[in-house]
Amino acid sequence: MMIVMKEGATEEEIAHVVERVELVGCTAHVSKGELLTVIGAIGDRDKDQQLSLDGAPGVDHVVPIAKPYKLASRQFKKGEDSVLEIGGRKVGGTNFALMAGPCTVENRDQMLTSADEVAAAGVTMLRGGAYKPRTSPYSFQGLGREGLRLLAEAKERTGLPIVTELLDLRDLDDVLEVADVIQIGARNMQNYSLLSEIGKSKRPALLKRGLSATVEELLMASEYILKEGNENVMLCERGIRTYETAYRFTLDLLAVPALKEQTHLPVIVDPSHAPGRRDWVEPMSLAAVAAGADGIIIEVHNDPDKAICDAAQQVPTSEFRELTSKIEAIAAVVGKTVSRA
Amino acid sequence: MMIVMKEGATEEEIAHVVERVELVGCTAHVSKGELLTVIGAIGDRDKDQQLSLDGAPGVDHVVPIAKPYKLASRQFKKGEDSVLEIGGRKVGGTNFALMAGPCTVENRDQMLTSADEVAAAGVTMLRGGAYKPRTSPYSFQGLGREGLRLLAEAKERTGLPIVTELLDLRDLDDVLEVADVIQIGARNMQNYSLLSEIGKSKRPALLKRGLSATVEELLMASEYILKEGNENVMLCERGIRTYETAYRFTLDLLAVPALKEQTHLPVIVDPSHAPGRRDWVEPMSLAAVAAGADGIIIEVHNDPDKAICDAAQQVPTSEFRELTSKIEAIAAVVGKTVSRA
Amino acid sequence: MMIVMKEGATEEEIAHVVERVELVGCTAHVSKGELLTVIGAIGDRDKDQQLSLDGAPGVDHVVPIAKPYKLASRQFKKGEDSVLEIGGRKVGGTNFALMAGPCTVENRDQMLTSADEVAAAGVTMLRGGAYKPRTSPYSFQGLGREGLRLLAEAKERTGLPIVTELLDLRDLDDVLEVADVIQIGARNMQNYSLLSEIGKSKRPALLKRGLSATVEELLMASEYILKEGNENVMLCERGIRTYETAYRFTLDLLAVPALKEQTHLPVIVDPSHAPGRRDWVEPMSLAAVAAGADGIIIEVHNDPDKAICDAAQQVPTSEFRELTSKIEAIAAVVGKTVSRA
Amino acid sequence: MMIVMKEGATEEEIAHVVERVELVGCTAHVSKGELLTVIGAIGDRDKDQQLSLDGAPGVDHVVPIAKPYKLASRQFKKGEDSVLEIGGRKVGGTNFALMAGPCTVENRDQMLTSADEVAAAGVTMLRGGAYKPRTSPYSFQGLGREGLRLLAEAKERTGLPIVTELLDLRDLDDVLEVADVIQIGARNMQNYSLLSEIGKSKRPALLKRGLSATVEELLMASEYILKEGNENVMLCERGIRTYETAYRFTLDLLAVPALKEQTHLPVIVDPSHAPGRRDWVEPMSLAAVAAGADGIIIEVHNDPDKAICDAAQQVPTSEFRELTSKIEAIAAVVGKTVSRA
Repeated sequence: MMIVMKEGATEEEIAHVVERVELVGCTAHVSKGELLTVIGAIGDRDKDQQLSLDGAPGVDHVVPIAKPYKLASRQFKKGEDSVLEIGGRKVGGTNFALMAGPCTVENRDQMLTSADEVAAAGVTMLRGGAYKPRTSPYSFQGLGREGLRLLAEAKERTGLPIVTELLDLRDLDDVLEVADVIQIGARNMQNYSLLSEIGKSKRPALLKRGLSATVEELLMASEYILKEGNENVMLCERGIRTYETAYRFTLDLLAVPALKEQTHLPVIVDPSHAPGRRDWVEPMSLAAVAAGADGIIIEVHNDPDKAICDAAQQVPTSEFRELTSKIEAIAAVVGKTVSRA
Repeated sequence: MMIVMKEGATEEEIAHVVERVELVGCTAHVSKGELLTVIGAIGDRDKDQQLSLDGAPGVDHVVPIAKPYKLASRQFKKGEDSVLEIGGRKVGGTNFALMAGPCTVENRDQMLTSADEVAAAGVTMLRGGAYKPRTSPYSFQGLGREGLRLLAEAKERTGLPIVTELLDLRDLDDVLEVADVIQIGARNMQNYSLLSEIGKSKRPALLKRGLSATVEELLMASEYILKEGNENVMLCERGIRTYETAYRFTLDLLAVPALKEQTHLPVIVDPSHAPGRRDWVEPMSLAAVAAGADGIIIEVHNDPDKAICDAAQQVPTSEFRELTSKIEAIAAVVGKTVSRA
Repeated sequence: MMIVMKEGATEEEIAHVVERVELVGCTAHVSKGELLTVIGAIGDRDKDQQLSLDGAPGVDHVVPIAKPYKLASRQFKKGEDSVLEIGGRKVGGTNFALMAGPCTVENRDQMLTSADEVAAAGVTMLRGGAYKPRTSPYSFQGLGREGLRLLAEAKERTGLPIVTELLDLRDLDDVLEVADVIQIGARNMQNYSLLSEIGKSKRPALLKRGLSATVEELLMASEYILKEGNENVMLCERGIRTYETAYRFTLDLLAVPALKEQTHLPVIVDPSHAPGRRDWVEPMSLAAVAAGADGIIIEVHNDPDKAICDAAQQVPTSEFRELTSKIEAIAAVVGKTVSRA
Repeated sequence: MMIVMKEGATEEEIAHVVERVELVGCTAHVSKGELLTVIGAIGDRDKDQQLSLDGAPGVDHVVPIAKPYKLASRQFKKGEDSVLEIGGRKVGGTNFALMAGPCTVENRDQMLTSADEVAAAGVTMLRGGAYKPRTSPYSFQGLGREGLRLLAEAKERTGLPIVTELLDLRDLDDVLEVADVIQIGARNMQNYSLLSEIGKSKRPALLKRGLSATVEELLMASEYILKEGNENVMLCERGIRTYETAYRFTLDLLAVPALKEQTHLPVIVDPSHAPGRRDWVEPMSLAAVAAGADGIIIEVHNDPDKAICDAAQQVPTSEFRELTSKIEAIAAVVGKTVSRA
């Protein structure tokens, strides 16, 4: 931390800051300039978090210097990219993960037909939701365990690794039976007990960015998983909340290079939820690839007009093959290949 | 829902929308205007949530008409305000709840001294955190059960009802032993299993607005608690995330009249977290009262410069009595009185 | 500026930064810590603005230290508040400016009736728009010079100073004939030629915060006026753009104490535009006073249901007297008095 | 407009709304449903803008139905894309406009060297700023007329059409002498007199989206130019302001398909200003192409480390040729070709 004092801060005010710095266990370095005095507080990450000197007498503002995360940082891996291995598929580096499947598991026919068709298009993994977070308590909340069973059947049939969301810790064991990747939804990005338990499970995790989370907060949330010894974390940009109402969320593709600069973890993009309508999913999928993402997770349905939820944003399997070939063409331009078994 | 078709939408496109409306179990009413065709979808709240017609062929946009919440709505109570009764104190209507206490329970001396001093100032309830949600896994996470024990002691000593936060369902029983009001933090506003279980516990709840939640989403989240038969819910504005970096959050006081128009539930304001520094807590506290809030929940500490967390934003107990008298003066102007046993 | 280098930045990278710092005319001070190297760039305000080192090799991030504004800063007046004198009324310090009047000058009867009624309620100044900025080129754009003429008549009749908006420099001379205060609208906050010319005119100015301007950008915009030798500037918070759609803008009352800490200039609040509806104007007016504003500028109309524009948000003159007495009561609590001739 | 009444709205309240609708010259259509009454207000675009019924007694909310713009709408061109012709280059449809050049004209050598190098890479147009909008009045404001003279020289030398910004109407004639395209900066998007005068000049315009403007407001701003008979308007996404501080602005690429659905005008992306650093300009440039933009306008400098302003974000001409070939490869995937004379 660096504490910038106001012009004209008194000696007492400076002494008070130094005292507070030392109280939390940091060392204080005072530099007096012509106009301003600046005090550096040097110490452990967790210590300087406790400083809390904003608005203290004579303090103008406080500036963090060191990153608050460690295991997620690119330096921690000496600048290398992490390459995860999930069900025989690589993710990261030059390996692009194409994850596709229906929003929600609705019934056996829908799930297996969708699975067969995305498998035929050559995806890396299969996605499908058994537990659905819903804004309204009156909306369909997913098939639950029956949905997990259908995912297991689809996995056996296609050989594809399964990505599915966990909402409630009480369902962890059930989810672990089928999920190759546990998805953590945007609204749970800071559900710290969920993060820690998924960390302990060591199962690969796909952590979605909260809808108003900063890049740094997403990295801090991943730290909760990593610190339990689970290194298999993928980060996922899925659209942030802004003032714009022409779409559901603003897909923030600048987060892709910004995250990749800071972390060794693979960065995935969800191009389906931000647009909320299928004709805008293709341009956002292609843009995500071009922006350098390590994968996308996209909603594809065999008959979206009959889908129970998010009908508008699911791409029909009939159009998915052509989309896949455009994705592969753009991936080639930026030096990546779709990862397959 | 009302589906507005594009100029020049074809008969097939209109028929397709009508079909989808009927598929989810709603009735379709088509009105053809000179330029535009508008289709009303009439049905249950949960049915029209599934429509998902954005971007469908010929559809320009979809407009919700009915509110998606029911139990939280002002109409549900025929326009009356709910007045809760908590440990002998009324909240709502003309009863203003002044809740104060330290951010975190740190140790016996700090907790009891702070409790005594806020009790002497005449507060309605005592707040204090035993479980702390922290962005960093390396930060102090609260005293846990020991913290709850100290809150119980403070309660016995002062007679004040206790407000404390629950983070993890596994701690529910412990928290129920001491909490008169269970606080649900901003990051858990959409943790649906937490909301449902607190609903089932029937204990009064203080539900904080998520940091990018809309007024409507806050009401929907309260619906998860209310639908379990727990009518004792207070909503809490605590600052939203915006582009402004001069403070931690933007305190959104317009949410106070906007919420009170839509709901019968009491609306509380947390004036401490948005400023993040104590000299701005007073103006925001007074502004909250003037804006018509039914209460404020404010961080007060007997020796904030030594506080373990959020030192900057805690008001010293020594200044709290004067603040209380200004609060009472402004409450009187808007027709309210600080609620006491 | 302070340039924080990445962990492991090379000597060449550090040397390159030092070179760039010196190129723009600043002096470089290098401090090498255990983990990080930090380089201070010391020099004039305008020089260090040109550094532009984000993303340069080895640079982690760049942190501004000194404020980019000077004349607007509280230090420039040695910590004192500016007290302006406008048409015999004081604004600033303990003098609260109550500015009221119709959104738009519509016709002689409406303007004079409204003026008489707000004068009778004891306001500080009279507002009214002759030139209206409209999102749509098809909307009513104001009466123009005829509107100015009616304002002049209202001024003569009531003796109240006039606040009116200037949109286009080509109307400056006309506006100067009647305006005691020239209002600069939110969408023109960074119209630099307008700011400079109003600066040269030396006429008091009310500068509205842009709808996504930071507190610092508002201060920088005021600097454009101040640097021409015009010290009579009032800043005005009027609501910022956020994701919330329940109201037109989010009134950001934290900006009041935040601005007053940084600047000696009076801080005014417009409580009418953010709510966009009259029943929320009273709570926001009272909250603004309680938050410590030096004045409010509020839309009041003798018959708002017949108003040409912004009918919804104009308070009827019939309710304005009672609002005024609540404003005075709350002003008293925070040590202010409504300023009158 | 559609006015949705509250549940339980009275007959008087409904009658009052109908009266207001008729007062502004619209026709009212009342539909009474089981729970809710909805009133349609049918009339001209400019009339229903004046309704202003939010918060009126019994009114729950007001929903716009018709688009507020006309000339910019896709329907106005019967669904066709506009293809502009500027200095012999086509823009729009399958013609991709690659506009490049330095942020600011600094001196003859820098301008001409940069121009020669971008010309050699095969760009569509040359950009360069003679007038610079600066947040600080103490920053370099551009070379002005001398800058325009150097642009004219670069144009003569390379044959490339020139894009340059106009800030102040008083410079219009000077700018018209050299500009093939007049750029309107983000901060001037709602400077209505500037828009109208550029409309009257009939010179092609590049209109940048304001930093918190919605897609609809950008279209409304273009309407100010179009209605003066100037059909040569390009819209430009350049990043919006959000809570994220890891970059200067959030580049909103979803605006590309969203704009193209609503309008026939070409949509350009500025990939330089949002990242604010050159290593993120390439991924954003490629993402813009993949998202379906009709062009990009990118800052390229022969020696960016010595640039007077925005040094961090300017791509060196030495790297620009490789970027151009990636742009061409991705343009081919989405069916576009870089436009040349």
